[in-house]
Amino acid sequence: MDSTPPPACDLQVDFPFDYAAHVAGDRRVGRLPETALGTPVAVIGAGGSGLAAAYELMRAGCRPVLYEAERSEDGPGGRRLGGRMYSRRLDPADSAVVELGCMRFPDSARLLRQYADAFGMHWEPFRENYAKGTTPVTVWDVDGKRYPVEEITDLHDLDDGFRRGHTRWRQALTRIGLQQVQRDVAARDLASLRARWTRLVREYEQWTFYRFLRDPDGAGLTHDQARLLGTAGVGPAAWDSFFDLSMVEVLRLLLCTEGGTQYYPREGISALAEGFWTHRSPSPGGRPTSLEEINGGAPRPAVTVVEVEEDRDRGVVVHSADGRAERFAAAVFTPQLHLLETNVELRSTAPGRSPLGPRLWRAVRRLSYWPSSKTALVLDRPFWEGTSLDGVTLTDRLPRAAYTVDYGPPRGEGGRRAVLDLSFTWAQDAVKVSPSGPRDRVRLFVRDLARIHPDVAPELARRADTAEAVTISWESEPHFRGLCRFSRPGEAPYVRDLFAHFMKDFAGKPAVPGEPRNALFLAGDDTSWSPGWLDHALASGINAAWGVLRLLGGRHEPGNPGPGDVWDDPDYTPLAFDP
Amino acid sequence: MDSTPPPACDLQVDFPFDYAAHVAGDRRVGRLPETALGTPVAVIGAGGSGLAAAYELMRAGCRPVLYEAERSEDGPGGRRLGGRMYSRRLDPADSAVVELGCMRFPDSARLLRQYADAFGMHWEPFRENYAKGTTPVTVWDVDGKRYPVEEITDLHDLDDGFRRGHTRWRQALTRIGLQQVQRDVAARDLASLRARWTRLVREYEQWTFYRFLRDPDGAGLTHDQARLLGTAGVGPAAWDSFFDLSMVEVLRLLLCTEGGTQYYPREGISALAEGFWTHRSPSPGGRPTSLEEINGGAPRPAVTVVEVEEDRDRGVVVHSADGRAERFAAAVFTPQLHLLETNVELRSTAPGRSPLGPRLWRAVRRLSYWPSSKTALVLDRPFWEGTSLDGVTLTDRLPRAAYTVDYGPPRGEGGRRAVLDLSFTWAQDAVKVSPSGPRDRVRLFVRDLARIHPDVAPELARRADTAEAVTISWESEPHFRGLCRFSRPGEAPYVRDLFAHFMKDFAGKPAVPGEPRNALFLAGDDTSWSPGWLDHALASGINAAWGVLRLLGGRHEPGNPGPGDVWDDPDYTPLAFDP
Repeated sequence: MDSTPPPACDLQVDFPFDYAAHVAGDRRVGRLPETALGTPVAVIGAGGSGLAAAYELMRAGCRPVLYEAERSEDGPGGRRLGGRMYSRRLDPADSAVVELGCMRFPDSARLLRQYADAFGMHWEPFRENYAKGTTPVTVWDVDGKRYPVEEITDLHDLDDGFRRGHTRWRQALTRIGLQQVQRDVAARDLASLRARWTRLVREYEQWTFYRFLRDPDGAGLTHDQARLLGTAGVGPAAWDSFFDLSMVEVLRLLLCTEGGTQYYPREGISALAEGFWTHRSPSPGGRPTSLEEINGGAPRPAVTVVEVEEDRDRGVVVHSADGRAERFAAAVFTPQLHLLETNVELRSTAPGRSPLGPRLWRAVRRLSYWPSSKTALVLDRPFWEGTSLDGVTLTDRLPRAAYTVDYGPPRGEGGRRAVLDLSFTWAQDAVKVSPSGPRDRVRLFVRDLARIHPDVAPELARRADTAEAVTISWESEPHFRGLCRFSRPGEAPYVRDLFAHFMKDFAGKPAVPGEPRNALFLAGDDTSWSPGWLDHALASGINAAWGVLRLLGGRHEPGNPGPGDVWDDPDYTPLAFDP
Repeated sequence: MDSTPPPACDLQVDFPFDYAAHVAGDRRVGRLPETALGTPVAVIGAGGSGLAAAYELMRAGCRPVLYEAERSEDGPGGRRLGGRMYSRRLDPADSAVVELGCMRFPDSARLLRQYADAFGMHWEPFRENYAKGTTPVTVWDVDGKRYPVEEITDLHDLDDGFRRGHTRWRQALTRIGLQQVQRDVAARDLASLRARWTRLVREYEQWTFYRFLRDPDGAGLTHDQARLLGTAGVGPAAWDSFFDLSMVEVLRLLLCTEGGTQYYPREGISALAEGFWTHRSPSPGGRPTSLEEINGGAPRPAVTVVEVEEDRDRGVVVHSADGRAERFAAAVFTPQLHLLETNVELRSTAPGRSPLGPRLWRAVRRLSYWPSSKTALVLDRPFWEGTSLDGVTLTDRLPRAAYTVDYGPPRGEGGRRAVLDLSFTWAQDAVKVSPSGPRDRVRLFVRDLARIHPDVAPELARRADTAEAVTISWESEPHFRGLCRFSRPGEAPYVRDLFAHFMKDFAGKPAVPGEPRNALFLAGDDTSWSPGWLDHALASGINAAWGVLRLLGGRHEPGNPGPGDVWDDPDYTPLAFDP
């Protein structure tokens, strides 16, 4: 057996289609027939998946019309592009941006990196927990004790409970064959991958992360060992805020990250949204164009009603907050799907029918969305250099996790370069500060960080008094109501249905039993296997683009089949679940 | 085997002390020595547990000084008494009150009912789900289909999946011996109860409710059967919003309710708070007095810092928002404990020490608090009579649960008598509407209820346009940040420690290893076995009162030992957990 650690998975283990290769360079998802070129398609939501769908539809010859509910003073037409790609730069002179949404991206995210490269973005190593060589120090603070380390195994020497727990956790992951899955992906052995991953999904889909930690058939830890691992964080989402996640959800995240390195874009991840929006790309019909140009410089405002024709050839009528109602040949809906219960009305033209069948409605209603909160200070310089704050802090106190980023020389005179994320929290921990205002949050987090870092406490307090603070609680944002969904045990059938939805009945029968044939396509990370994962969200946009294209009579280009074209291949067809 | 259904448990199965008997009639928790009569004790939080603690401490000869953070225009000194006993009466002429917190109370809640009787309150049968004879109709609306029924077994004839699921669920409860536990309690066979309950706790503490539903060693349901049960609701908290609760938490709630009937107080449950506050009771020292009198007619404002002396004889200094700092012989802290991270600073006079040891801090930091939301209309009359809305609606749509209450003849001219709870939700379902304002909420819930109840839809819409609406999201309330905690798997050690805490070291050694000896006592439903359960919250106040009394040299009265006096009795000593 090979003992070299395998690389992180650059394919989705549930549907190992190579999205990056599919749209690399001049390759496109397909093209519309000549007669259909310029067909208007509505794309609702200008986040990662909406922009990717619109961008690829444009490259295939459609005229994608974007709608976006979020406002911003600086954005095109007063709209904020990017969704949960949300980099706040407080002043144009600052190099520093606060990443309010996604903030770190593994090198395995090949589709994301390909787009970012095309848009001229720059990646820097992220100061991730325990990233030796990148993160000067990770301080683990638990039960009032502080453990400053360089890498996670350093904790083994410092805390015996942690050593035992962490060792057993690593052994359990090896025993269930996590690295073999990664090797299958690296070797593109899709048949072996399918067999192995199916076994893991069937075994652990109904397990919580916590059960896996405790159960003798999992890692077999004591309560206390699980608690210590839960505070130290052992991979993204391998954190006690997520103890009630499905273990399969945790495995998916580990597969994409273990064996890889995390990066962040120097420009802020919002630059990816700007790239999609402004990048001029050759269209099949003629001269290069951009989404910005097609959309007259601004996306349309919030959508209020999506009226879906029962006869798919009659398309979809999109009503927006400006009172406009316009018919499109198809529509791609990308916001978080629970907003269909509160923000956007989905209506069928057939009385008493719904544009979604009962199975997708169940998914929409029962998905679990996670609160998440971040509070950051923007500072002229990284005053923490050389102190115990110079890296990452993980703690059982209120802030839970603190990060430091230096964005390098400011862009202009008097600009700021440094960001101190005082706190980044999830679930229960995020809700604790939901009702607190910005100043209160800063005060509370600084109080706790000062106790963990006495060497820099006075300066931290001084700077917190004057620094500009930025904070967000995603559960309180009306257009999101949570940062993203994560699956709990029992939600796998919903996730499978949401992913399969874009196939409509293109393989002969509805991919989701009971779904009406119509011209509405869902996308966004709610329809991907790993939520909160930008790379997979972008891929979901490509799925929807494939569906729209197929609906409008388009086909893939020679030698470049799309995700729907390989659907029936047993190496790809997603696992179905008994109801 | 006896086949009569046993009554709901009127004792706490984890600590079957008879609190109601302990303080019945003229009986009191004990009395202070003559020399200590009138000793001031701070009671922080005027909710159920704080008021019960203060009331019993008063009856034992202390001078309890109450602090309350919540404001109200009508309350004493502008403070709102009651905590999550929160009945809003919009106009003095209304008989109708909206119960924003707890709203239904089983007859097994004997301590609660005893206090309510003493304060002259009146109970009416609550229109609970499937309460035949009380609730004219319970409409179960799932997957777009409506099932109007009188009792839950009527659903067996209407939906085969539900019948099979519900039958297996009932059989599983019987198989694990739930009713035997109830019989042990009814027979006061504490030794048998202890043995039986210990087995159940050890077996299921690490199971989620969902796992119990699905696992072949539990009820063995399919995903779809579990989903149907999760929407129909099979007992309080036996609802899909709670699928990630510890199964033991669900069992505790079932034990207190199955075999019993739910009631509501005609006056609103806030009347219990007013009763505690105003009821004049003979004090050991002399003439009858009340908490209102002792506190000069108003509780003090919010507490900012609780400064606990390391030397317990020096007591506790309580700092409040009015700038006052006062020393007390002891303090009882009753708010939700996660507020110790955000709202109230807990400080020791010993530098670098904490008034709580590491185990209690873990509990404070890792307890799981549940969001909960309610939206109600107050109406002149129960316009729904004779329609399908005349009872309870349970649905997989946004409102999840709707209730109707008629409070009888108004108190004054033009007063209103009817309350329509448009929606009562928990967890995920509550968060969906968190960012929505009152009018938006009403619009969304009325939209969905109109679809479920077409017979009354036009009148519902008309009335919603003009009726006064009341709404709350407990997770957004700064003094609560969630309606209550519920345990997830793995939290049992925290719950045990929080309950045990009041014993301090009175049995010779600290009941919670590592806890400092000091004069701070915790109470509230965070320290009880069943959270969100007023009866047990009141009992937690009696525990704290016992601790304070013991600290101040008081003793129980002859023949009436208190909870701490029976602590070492093996029928009572709470089960300990390995770390």
